[in-house]
Amino acid sequence: MKDIFAEVITIGDEILYGQITDTNTQWISAELSKIGVKTIRKSSVGDNEAQILQILREAETRADVILLTGGLGPTKDDITKKTLAQHFGTGMVLNDDALANVTEIFTRRGFPLTEINRQQAMVPSNCTCLVNKVGTAPGMWFEQSGKVYASMPGVPHEMKWLMETYVLDKIRAFFNTPFIYHKIIRTVGIGESFLAQKIESWEDALPPHIRLAYLPSMGQVKLRLTATGADADGVVAETQQQVDELLKLAHEYVYGYDDDELEAVAGRMLRERSLKLAVAESCTGGYLAHMITKVPGSSDYFTGGVVAYSNDLKVNELGVLPETLAQHGAVSEETVRQMAENVRLRLGADIGLATSGVAGPGGGSDEKPVGTVWIAYADGTKTVAKKLQLFRDRVLNIQMSSLYTLNLMRTELASGG
Amino acid sequence: MKDIFAEVITIGDEILYGQITDTNTQWISAELSKIGVKTIRKSSVGDNEAQILQILREAETRADVILLTGGLGPTKDDITKKTLAQHFGTGMVLNDDALANVTEIFTRRGFPLTEINRQQAMVPSNCTCLVNKVGTAPGMWFEQSGKVYASMPGVPHEMKWLMETYVLDKIRAFFNTPFIYHKIIRTVGIGESFLAQKIESWEDALPPHIRLAYLPSMGQVKLRLTATGADADGVVAETQQQVDELLKLAHEYVYGYDDDELEAVAGRMLRERSLKLAVAESCTGGYLAHMITKVPGSSDYFTGGVVAYSNDLKVNELGVLPETLAQHGAVSEETVRQMAENVRLRLGADIGLATSGVAGPGGGSDEKPVGTVWIAYADGTKTVAKKLQLFRDRVLNIQMSSLYTLNLMRTELASGG
Repeated sequence: MKDIFAEVITIGDEILYGQITDTNTQWISAELSKIGVKTIRKSSVGDNEAQILQILREAETRADVILLTGGLGPTKDDITKKTLAQHFGTGMVLNDDALANVTEIFTRRGFPLTEINRQQAMVPSNCTCLVNKVGTAPGMWFEQSGKVYASMPGVPHEMKWLMETYVLDKIRAFFNTPFIYHKIIRTVGIGESFLAQKIESWEDALPPHIRLAYLPSMGQVKLRLTATGADADGVVAETQQQVDELLKLAHEYVYGYDDDELEAVAGRMLRERSLKLAVAESCTGGYLAHMITKVPGSSDYFTGGVVAYSNDLKVNELGVLPETLAQHGAVSEETVRQMAENVRLRLGADIGLATSGVAGPGGGSDEKPVGTVWIAYADGTKTVAKKLQLFRDRVLNIQMSSLYTLNLMRTELASGG
Repeated sequence: MKDIFAEVITIGDEILYGQITDTNTQWISAELSKIGVKTIRKSSVGDNEAQILQILREAETRADVILLTGGLGPTKDDITKKTLAQHFGTGMVLNDDALANVTEIFTRRGFPLTEINRQQAMVPSNCTCLVNKVGTAPGMWFEQSGKVYASMPGVPHEMKWLMETYVLDKIRAFFNTPFIYHKIIRTVGIGESFLAQKIESWEDALPPHIRLAYLPSMGQVKLRLTATGADADGVVAETQQQVDELLKLAHEYVYGYDDDELEAVAGRMLRERSLKLAVAESCTGGYLAHMITKVPGSSDYFTGGVVAYSNDLKVNELGVLPETLAQHGAVSEETVRQMAENVRLRLGADIGLATSGVAGPGGGSDEKPVGTVWIAYADGTKTVAKKLQLFRDRVLNIQMSSLYTLNLMRTELASGG
């Protein structure tokens, strides 16, 4: 199969001058990669006719797929549409579907349609209008000389909706791309290079039509399998066989698939087992509770938490023995075990989790340097504590400690804890 | 003064294929803008000689300043250096300072210097080597035909260090840019358009050499003043006068300047007043405590917090009266006042803060739709409660509620509360 190349072009002064973060182009090229289209250039230009015309001419010499975002708002600054018409040598026409859509949106909001917004339904006469059900600016699709072009608003959720509703399918149809299947295996608690060693034999034996990518992020590594073939069912089944083989080598690190987040997976395990959770935090300072409660519906299994920053609170609210603190210190196995056991009882939960550590930048010692963190799990039958040695960054230490504490619970529950 | 134009070029397959987020180019163009240099194009290309040569030739036709990041690692993939030498028609030479630097870094880590890492000290013969004290790959500076070029590693903290240590100053010196002074005024609790209305007369009266930019983010708007002039002391003094004028119109929304974060400002106020803080959270689920504790040294003034997700915990741990919950519900002024007052007493603090609301997506009703949040401040003398009506996104509601609760404390303390 011939390679299909794409260029992704961002239009707008705000991105060019660094006033807002561009999250669109990363998402777009990741999605293109999933359908087998390779991004060869990304560019940002301003809301400027000459710059837009220039980048369009350049991109045509290199790419088969040219995707533009931005510059489609109703204000005078936004000139993408008119510039596209100029580039293709066509005029502007009123698109009935786009007009119906923008009229409907204004009616729903109880505003009269202004002339400025009516102009949003004007598009270059050679485009296929991509009616935008989540915004007032339509997307546009062009085909010319064996190349395809799409122009979309810069608002991320509108761009994503148009890509997922129209653009990705239209690219696949135009270039008749083969079936591509993706499976993401999510791991936690093992570094990229150690994981690679562990699964080396499996990776080396992958057939050429199933590719593997490592996608590392904080404390986690996602493995993405991309399988290609003519027979969709066969491709899916074969990929699943490979996942099963992988699990034989690394099952203890795998917590989920595709869009599963660790906090949601952990929550689901609690809900399925009808268990309630409570947390006692020192160094994580509320972040562990936040990870748990940012999952919708977490009130079903989370009773609550205590953030005990001072030693007084560790004694008064969490029943840590003063002699334990005196003898071993707040950052110790003994303290964190008592915190987990007592918060469980005190807050009426089945499981208690606890953290105590030196988040930094101050507070470290030779014996307990910054990044030393004790975490614990208690379920009434047993208590498990673990020592982490993390890094020098405070916020990273807080986030990693919270993640590993949730993962400790996950592994205990998975092993029948 | 003639405009100075810049192009920012990112080199690396990981960014091009959407595997990692590019945060460098936003930072770079924002910094360039501060010294009066205007970014006219941003591009990402792969680790590919032909692509790099092409973008260099294109950029030279448009820009005075060409900044490159990425492709400087020791592996074979990273070809930026050799390609730059080819572009300038020069050879590679060993740079003694760069070699001393990389040798020193390896000695410190206790590793022998490998030949691959020794290669990192090879640079194009026409460059000024920018010794990188925070990494092994040196930065490079080139001057040719009235244009300047810098090549830096893609690792964000190395790139920032090189920009701040060398590159920004060298650009200013080369183009002899005028003195530029920036002052950021940070506001919270007022939307961009309302703030703009409130300060319209002041904005209209700004002299032409002091420009204003609105930089909105979640719940906050930063106002950036950029002042230009020949006399540095005069420019600074004049800008400060304008800030003083602005404060007359909007002082109640201003919490800090430049890099001040609200959580750090609030913490400083507590420390200066020798006050201790405790928090009781329902809908914010630990995030308010996290905002407070992510500030280094927060243990000086934060005793702790209770996350009371269930009504049982609101009664047992926070002393909310069962009849209050029965009569008014958990999301009510009455409940949140009791939470703030009681957590203050219970956790031995001077000030108590509390939140209770419907974060969503479930749990809303006609009377209390998703986004309804009550927040409260109690200091023993008085209790202040406030109702927020936020949006539909759970995580955003959690973050905004926490921010506004901290701001409630800030305004109470500032007014002598």
